[in-house]
Amino acid sequence: MSAFDDLMAFQRETEALGQIAGRLGWDQETMMPRGAAPQRGEEMAAMEGVLHARRVDSRIGDWLEMIDEGHLDAAGSAQLRHIRRSHARASKVPTALAARIARVTSEAQGIWAEARAADDFKAFAPTLSEVITLKREEGMALAAGGDIYDAMLDDYEPGATGVELEAMFGALRPELTRLREAFRGAEAPPMLEGKFDESAQMKLTRQLAKTFGYDMSKGRVDKAVHPFSSGSGLDVRITTRTNEVDPFNCFYSTIHEVGHACYEQGINPAYLLTPLGNGVSMGVHESQSRIYENQLGRSRAFTGWLYGQMRDAFGDFGVADEDMFYRIVNRVSDGFIRTEADELQYNLHVLLRFDLERALMGGDLQVDDLETAWNDRFKADFGFEVDKPSNGVLQDVHWSVGLFGYFPTYSLGNVYAGCLHDALRGDLPDLDMQLAQGETEAATGWLRANVQTHGGLYAPKEVITRATGSTPSEAPLLAYLTSKFSALYKL
Amino acid sequence: MSAFDDLMAFQRETEALGQIAGRLGWDQETMMPRGAAPQRGEEMAAMEGVLHARRVDSRIGDWLEMIDEGHLDAAGSAQLRHIRRSHARASKVPTALAARIARVTSEAQGIWAEARAADDFKAFAPTLSEVITLKREEGMALAAGGDIYDAMLDDYEPGATGVELEAMFGALRPELTRLREAFRGAEAPPMLEGKFDESAQMKLTRQLAKTFGYDMSKGRVDKAVHPFSSGSGLDVRITTRTNEVDPFNCFYSTIHEVGHACYEQGINPAYLLTPLGNGVSMGVHESQSRIYENQLGRSRAFTGWLYGQMRDAFGDFGVADEDMFYRIVNRVSDGFIRTEADELQYNLHVLLRFDLERALMGGDLQVDDLETAWNDRFKADFGFEVDKPSNGVLQDVHWSVGLFGYFPTYSLGNVYAGCLHDALRGDLPDLDMQLAQGETEAATGWLRANVQTHGGLYAPKEVITRATGSTPSEAPLLAYLTSKFSALYKL
Repeated sequence: MSAFDDLMAFQRETEALGQIAGRLGWDQETMMPRGAAPQRGEEMAAMEGVLHARRVDSRIGDWLEMIDEGHLDAAGSAQLRHIRRSHARASKVPTALAARIARVTSEAQGIWAEARAADDFKAFAPTLSEVITLKREEGMALAAGGDIYDAMLDDYEPGATGVELEAMFGALRPELTRLREAFRGAEAPPMLEGKFDESAQMKLTRQLAKTFGYDMSKGRVDKAVHPFSSGSGLDVRITTRTNEVDPFNCFYSTIHEVGHACYEQGINPAYLLTPLGNGVSMGVHESQSRIYENQLGRSRAFTGWLYGQMRDAFGDFGVADEDMFYRIVNRVSDGFIRTEADELQYNLHVLLRFDLERALMGGDLQVDDLETAWNDRFKADFGFEVDKPSNGVLQDVHWSVGLFGYFPTYSLGNVYAGCLHDALRGDLPDLDMQLAQGETEAATGWLRANVQTHGGLYAPKEVITRATGSTPSEAPLLAYLTSKFSALYKL
Repeated sequence: MSAFDDLMAFQRETEALGQIAGRLGWDQETMMPRGAAPQRGEEMAAMEGVLHARRVDSRIGDWLEMIDEGHLDAAGSAQLRHIRRSHARASKVPTALAARIARVTSEAQGIWAEARAADDFKAFAPTLSEVITLKREEGMALAAGGDIYDAMLDDYEPGATGVELEAMFGALRPELTRLREAFRGAEAPPMLEGKFDESAQMKLTRQLAKTFGYDMSKGRVDKAVHPFSSGSGLDVRITTRTNEVDPFNCFYSTIHEVGHACYEQGINPAYLLTPLGNGVSMGVHESQSRIYENQLGRSRAFTGWLYGQMRDAFGDFGVADEDMFYRIVNRVSDGFIRTEADELQYNLHVLLRFDLERALMGGDLQVDDLETAWNDRFKADFGFEVDKPSNGVLQDVHWSVGLFGYFPTYSLGNVYAGCLHDALRGDLPDLDMQLAQGETEAATGWLRANVQTHGGLYAPKEVITRATGSTPSEAPLLAYLTSKFSALYKL
């Protein structure tokens, strides 16, 4: 065996163990008995210890030195790029610091949940300060003299920089607030009324998952408090949720997670259990979930088909026709909560968090001033006041568990989805006719061939550039949103 | 930290990882999508590699040498006994041999399944020979000059020997065949008739699990092809199965698995995630499952209560009264299959396998002669001929996956259950009155206090001796079976 083969055999085991860790997470949210939590904590920590030891294993460095990269093909070189990156990342952070971050963020999540329930930011502030101090220390170790926030971003979106995202988001923000102001003066469609049997919702949601190409023989759909997708390769599971009065929550959560899951299922099988066998970044992942959910799933054509499916499943549910159904699915309304936001306003929520967390990491904003900064920015972008911290600065779990640099990937994903949608429409002139029949195969096949199959072969931005023929830009997303919502609200 | 503390911290992580491996097994039988199987194989192999590396880790030997055992309490000494045993066992078997056994048995299971489906023992014989050759090689490495079969037994029943079991089973066999012959001339009760809704079966089976003290906040009940119990400590899950025409299969599978699960749940919480935090042997484990299932669950008193529960769940199901119900639950009938055997004949199935596998391992029986040997013995003990290999030598998966020395623990468990039942009845004169009300707390509490709580603290035989005040013997089981079935069949 060559050094490359040895390294890949070692890495394959690491990937397999990583899949197990992911499946434990799935089990925890779906199947685990409540009383098992303390034991599960120890199990996860032991598994994390095994994975960490493998990531910093000194043999990786030895193998990397011995490999003659000139003899490798593009995939082989890409494998090395990922392994080198992961090995360097794990080796840069002192073990004691990593352990401290794990312990503090584990406790911080509980303190955040209590503070949110009590609507008391001050109860969370000291803990958040500690998390930020530790994460800045980690960021300095990772950045090695470079920008701390960029080093954090790199965990989720390799190659992205704060400056680059600032420019992109800076172009989005004024246009989005302009659109948002416009719709507030326009007449909104009614809300959905009535009750929708939850087992019928699950039945239709499973059908929707298949409609969007999710391979049920290598996955499964369960209920969980928060919808998510988990796993890679031959075992990619999703969760969704049901709410008797809000079937759209179930259906669009499912379609969103199916987007993530199909990305993992669509990767070249030759990359199974290798570093290339996973989605390349959070941003590209979110581009898949969002284009499935929004550009395809909330299109006029597809909602027309879904209307018929819902009539079959629930009978007459008080919506007169497809046009009204389309307007209700895409209803825009005031709201405080990011996860409940509509397609139009969602990115304003993310941009707010991006600017604030970058300022926190850069030392330009202190935790004591965070609540005020949040509320001021919210008023400026959304046009009304935050009424309480649980609807504002305390609404997201991310910062409590040390996720800094993660939020912007949501909007980057939307921007990428805009670019891909533009290119896909250009290649598939009959798309709306197909979607109107509930056929997504042409669209999902295009995404599989142009994005999903590559897994980790190319850098994130390169994936989008290759698929679309252009450097990613916020322009297609803006044009799409402007056109869609202007028509919907007759602006 | 002392060497003992270091060793225990290391071991605690190993136990946690072992729990994860077990939960993967549970997932595979209950939740895993079918198409995930090839990936799961790699995941399990990677996990097994991690566990094996920890078991043979040279630091264990160093720590064991540094520890001054004179300063440890009984529990500490028992922990060391288990760790020493596991370390020595893993270190004795060459890694290449262990890997070969894993590979060959993995393939052999598929070949066995095909041969069974085709009723063709010759198609399985060469593979079985290979498995036996490898297992004998492993046995020689483990026995280090001692008896090969005893070395194998030691994996499942530490301290047990073939000679000792031969004496015990030798005393059982003539009495069991005598009883078996007697009932064949007696009038049998009718079979259960009608259909029993499977979701109502699951509802009642969950109630039965709780009735027998299974803590649902630290466990769960799912359906699987084969009922089993899995996990230790705070996360002990069971499975059962349903069959529309045979609700007893569901209920008694559940009660059996609840016996296993309650053993794990009943262990002293101070032993969580340590070597003492698991059931001490297969025999003692089976004593718990069998006493829950048979001596308690199939007693006249408890079946009287169960009859009422079934009337509530299914209405009138064609059984006139409690006495007839009791006779139907304990119906004895001819059959080829061990797993379907009644309480009376079950051990005859096991004794047959014990003698044959011991002869195979000792070189006194060749695979080419195995089918004939099986059929001759079956005729002698059961009084009729085996009609086809799938009803005979091909019926069990055990040998194909390399399980030699496992079968006898089933009957040893029944013998232990007989001893425990005797002692328990002596301490609980009101037991039948309680069971007739569906109250098992006194009996399960007795078993928890006298058996389950000790986990791995004492050697298997010592657990039973301490609980009953006498050395284990087959006499109580024989007396119980003779009395119960003589009365039932008016012999």
